[in-house]
Amino acid sequence: MIALGIDPGTAICGYGLVEAQGSRIRALTYGVVETTPDMAGAMRLKKVHQEIDLLIKQYNPDIMGVEQLFMNKNVRTVMAVGQARGVILLAAAQNALKLAEYTPLQVKQAVTGYGKATKEQVIYMTQRLLNLPGKPHPDDAADALAVAICTIHCGNINRMRITNDRLC
Amino acid sequence: MIALGIDPGTAICGYGLVEAQGSRIRALTYGVVETTPDMAGAMRLKKVHQEIDLLIKQYNPDIMGVEQLFMNKNVRTVMAVGQARGVILLAAAQNALKLAEYTPLQVKQAVTGYGKATKEQVIYMTQRLLNLPGKPHPDDAADALAVAICTIHCGNINRMRITNDRLC
Repeated sequence: MIALGIDPGTAICGYGLVEAQGSRIRALTYGVVETTPDMAGAMRLKKVHQEIDLLIKQYNPDIMGVEQLFMNKNVRTVMAVGQARGVILLAAAQNALKLAEYTPLQVKQAVTGYGKATKEQVIYMTQRLLNLPGKPHPDDAADALAVAICTIHCGNINRMRITNDRLC
Repeated sequence: MIALGIDPGTAICGYGLVEAQGSRIRALTYGVVETTPDMAGAMRLKKVHQEIDLLIKQYNPDIMGVEQLFMNKNVRTVMAVGQARGVILLAAAQNALKLAEYTPLQVKQAVTGYGKATKEQVIYMTQRLLNLPGKPHPDDAADALAVAICTIHCGNINRMRITNDRLC
């Protein structure tokens, strides 16, 4: 199973591809799509859409995981992230990719076992779980890897539940 | 000159195509793209993107006008509209379409001459200016037509300014 985790944004959009084989997980790739303020807003969205579409076609993931926006941010930020999310979710739909959304609490819980973990704890555990030689950076890419781990983790839980013939 | 006006939304997205020939303007078409809550969110965005992309290819407008979101709305609404705006701006960029954004005040000013006009006044003047047999409906389509009129109007002002060799 391959999960593509996304930390949406227009200026900087993090991505992380994580593969699970049994209980082992490894990072296939991770990084960020960056756009600059001198680009027109629509062209920035086009670049984000193109790059994510390319990643999906290249790595053929089974599922995309996206973090839900923390709702206390200001309206202008929400609008900008919303626009980036729009083109990312579109790329998923255009490639018939399954989609899962997680709260920051769910991501922290899945990666560290503690929903109130600090950013540093999440990055540390992401590095440990994926057996990376150093801290994944920038932070947006690390966040995306954490979302991908959460997506794999929750997928496994759902499969266990289905195997046990219980409701998800 | 043909302007495509958009009133962005995921559940209902208004569009209006207005053509200007000299000082005369007429509506080429208008309506809404509707999606239902039983569709997955990403599939709703895909439908909105597809329909707007189709309109652009069919009518080959010179410019797309989009209303800026009124910033007092709640965060959940802003996120939903942001996602819809994202795929609409993407369609503009993918078709190399010029883009203009207007505040509600600018749209009201352009259509009625009064920035604090009521919704009913805007719809009434939109009908009059476009010489439509009845009130354009639903409201989302009427709003989109008003944005298209504003886009034409502001385009004309900019051309006059350029002709007069003054800064826009």
